[in-house]
Amino acid sequence: MEKVFSYLRDNEAKFVEQLLQYVRFPSVSAQPQHSGDMKNCAEWLRDHCRAIGLEAELHATAGHPILVARTRRRKGRKHFLVYGHYDVQPPEPFELWKTPPFEPRIEGRSMFGRGASDNKGQNLAHLKAVEAYFKTKTELPVDLTFVIEGEEEVGSSHLAEFLRAHRDELKCDAIVISDTGMPSKKLPALTYALRGIMALEIKLTGPARDLHSGIFGGSVENPAMALCRLLAQIHDKNGRIAIPGLYDDVAPLSKFERAQFVKLPFTPEQYRKLLGVPALFGEKGFTHHEQRSARPTFEINGLTSGYQGAGSKTIVPSWASAKITMRLVPNQKPARLQKLVQAHLKKLCPPTVKLEIKSGHGGDPYIVSPTSQVALAAMRALKAGFGAEPIAMREGGSIPIVNDFKRILGADTLLLGLALPDDNAHSPNEKFDLDNFAGGMRMAAQLWQELAAA
Amino acid sequence: MEKVFSYLRDNEAKFVEQLLQYVRFPSVSAQPQHSGDMKNCAEWLRDHCRAIGLEAELHATAGHPILVARTRRRKGRKHFLVYGHYDVQPPEPFELWKTPPFEPRIEGRSMFGRGASDNKGQNLAHLKAVEAYFKTKTELPVDLTFVIEGEEEVGSSHLAEFLRAHRDELKCDAIVISDTGMPSKKLPALTYALRGIMALEIKLTGPARDLHSGIFGGSVENPAMALCRLLAQIHDKNGRIAIPGLYDDVAPLSKFERAQFVKLPFTPEQYRKLLGVPALFGEKGFTHHEQRSARPTFEINGLTSGYQGAGSKTIVPSWASAKITMRLVPNQKPARLQKLVQAHLKKLCPPTVKLEIKSGHGGDPYIVSPTSQVALAAMRALKAGFGAEPIAMREGGSIPIVNDFKRILGADTLLLGLALPDDNAHSPNEKFDLDNFAGGMRMAAQLWQELAAA
Repeated sequence: MEKVFSYLRDNEAKFVEQLLQYVRFPSVSAQPQHSGDMKNCAEWLRDHCRAIGLEAELHATAGHPILVARTRRRKGRKHFLVYGHYDVQPPEPFELWKTPPFEPRIEGRSMFGRGASDNKGQNLAHLKAVEAYFKTKTELPVDLTFVIEGEEEVGSSHLAEFLRAHRDELKCDAIVISDTGMPSKKLPALTYALRGIMALEIKLTGPARDLHSGIFGGSVENPAMALCRLLAQIHDKNGRIAIPGLYDDVAPLSKFERAQFVKLPFTPEQYRKLLGVPALFGEKGFTHHEQRSARPTFEINGLTSGYQGAGSKTIVPSWASAKITMRLVPNQKPARLQKLVQAHLKKLCPPTVKLEIKSGHGGDPYIVSPTSQVALAAMRALKAGFGAEPIAMREGGSIPIVNDFKRILGADTLLLGLALPDDNAHSPNEKFDLDNFAGGMRMAAQLWQELAAA
Repeated sequence: MEKVFSYLRDNEAKFVEQLLQYVRFPSVSAQPQHSGDMKNCAEWLRDHCRAIGLEAELHATAGHPILVARTRRRKGRKHFLVYGHYDVQPPEPFELWKTPPFEPRIEGRSMFGRGASDNKGQNLAHLKAVEAYFKTKTELPVDLTFVIEGEEEVGSSHLAEFLRAHRDELKCDAIVISDTGMPSKKLPALTYALRGIMALEIKLTGPARDLHSGIFGGSVENPAMALCRLLAQIHDKNGRIAIPGLYDDVAPLSKFERAQFVKLPFTPEQYRKLLGVPALFGEKGFTHHEQRSARPTFEINGLTSGYQGAGSKTIVPSWASAKITMRLVPNQKPARLQKLVQAHLKKLCPPTVKLEIKSGHGGDPYIVSPTSQVALAAMRALKAGFGAEPIAMREGGSIPIVNDFKRILGADTLLLGLALPDDNAHSPNEKFDLDNFAGGMRMAAQLWQELAAA
């Protein structure tokens, strides 16, 4: 492996130059005026993969093409799928960028440009690792297929369809994705769990129309007040969701997991400052890191009722509504929770208003054991790549494609993110850390050794 | 008085014709394109007053002119001020009118047209009563000043200034206003009390910006939820406002008053159907009529937080706000209540969010004893005018000018409304009942006899 690592080290300047080229494509999947740029970027990537020595094709979809690049399949070798995306978020607002988003520049050890971190730098690191094997004629101990799509930032609309159509050739031992983050340069991380999601909308209707609050107020339930009373009963005084049965399926945190959480940066006070709140708040008995990634939530995303303009309007509003999303943790299921929540809300609703509940989208939580053989192999690769003890961490958000991979290909995903918390993904002045680029290439190279042996 | 009543009876057809003329003016004070119509209407009214035999002048204001018409002042006579307004609400939406709003028509005993009931028919009834005295050479036992303004529907912006400037000549024993309603044709009413009002706006701010509900949710207070919990504590389980000291100044209802309430139409079930609610709700121990006119309220007029568009947005919103108006009853004072409420909200507010309270407008509640000499005199006039036993009632809304009259002229107001609940004031197809027009003229004629003797 020394040859592989030497090759990566010796060619770093060239790789950085290639990443600059890659970032220069304004591959904004959401904006129709960039469809030509999308095509150019996909073709550049295909040609780049071919130059590395991979078999590479673009698969047309009803949207943007999906790049598939593979090593030759060999009998008896494990097969892994590396996922990434070449599309980027819209760069607006332009005026907040210090330099133009698609004219990437290097400042110290940062490359600034839209898509540098999310996700071009990260997927290029994986390609460069394979290039190192090929160019140094080092035997790659596993077979690999790269699936780099162009619609991640617009909901991966055609990925599931593609996976289903190519299920057999994509069958693999695991999926590897570098599209998440690590807490700091000194703390590389395997993300082994994600929260799921369940959306609903609650509407309470009282009077048939807005009523004059002078003429009628006092003799009729105010739906906005009824909504407040309803929602105020959702949590108990310890910040726990007071819906019967809700925690039944929550897998408890192991000692190992809680010990990992302790290693995360951000003291409560630092974290409080980051959020800009007067005081933190969450479920008793759990640290803020546990609360935000390993515990279920019931979150009001929006409230709407009555008059919201300037000044005042003296009405009893006819209705009030709340948009809600819940975050689910392993092993909660959106369908079961939707039933529990709806039954509970119906029970709480007073007879003075009519309750309507609209079910929204749902997504399963995700977990791969942080002490499984593949997880431990990934941790060893992280350590080799970054020269620091990695942690296994949970993330509080959801990555729907991870569930698609599991459902369609039946394989687990290893999330080995290379982004830093200050990379400004989706924001102006996005950057990618070049130490993480280098560390990511080393990690990616070592990963196949570790996974082959795991 | 027989001559007066005969005159009113014999000339009813002519008076109806005059009301049609009056209603034909599109005197919409809110709409600049009608400023010419406003002037024409005011001049017509002035000329009409002069034709009756009153001294009449238009007083220019920074807005629309105020008509002042008076009988000659005599020494030793009581002096009463009759207030009305010649401006009307905007007629929109036109498409909901069966016939054009300013082409009044008669159908059965109803005159349809914008302003027929609010307030042209009502102030014309008072003018016709005086005409009857003059034309029949019957001695008017009191002196009268009519103040008929053109800005009632836009907040009476220049009335207080006018009252202050003419305080001495307007000094009077009482003000008479026919601009409210009676429960039914068979139930004429003296409105002896109004609720006051106090507005405030509450804003709770948590995180410095909207937060990703996946990444941060669970470890930070959701300001929308905090607002719900705060507001849910405002009432106790009996529907009473749970703010310490809030009821201290509430004058209890007398036996006489509660007996009056019982005479009002609308059973709870009829009332429930009118509002279109699944069940009624209000403070325990009071009837729905008492709740809506004689008890204080704390009403949410609007709720705003986070995302309110289509679909969902997975955020912990940075802030949440509620627009509130409270209705006050005699003898509550807005300034004291504002303090009580703010102190209570501050006490309830958790340390996890920042509370901001914006004080809005306030208006005193109003009451004139329903068993005072003037009130009893007014009740006798109502009985004479409508041939039915009247009631003394409270109204739940507020009429700010009544407080202006009290504050500036030091006089009480008798509210002797001629509108019926189905007159559609402020709505399409406004109408005025011609029996109430006739009854109102008789009542207005008898009123001066009763008040002179009271």
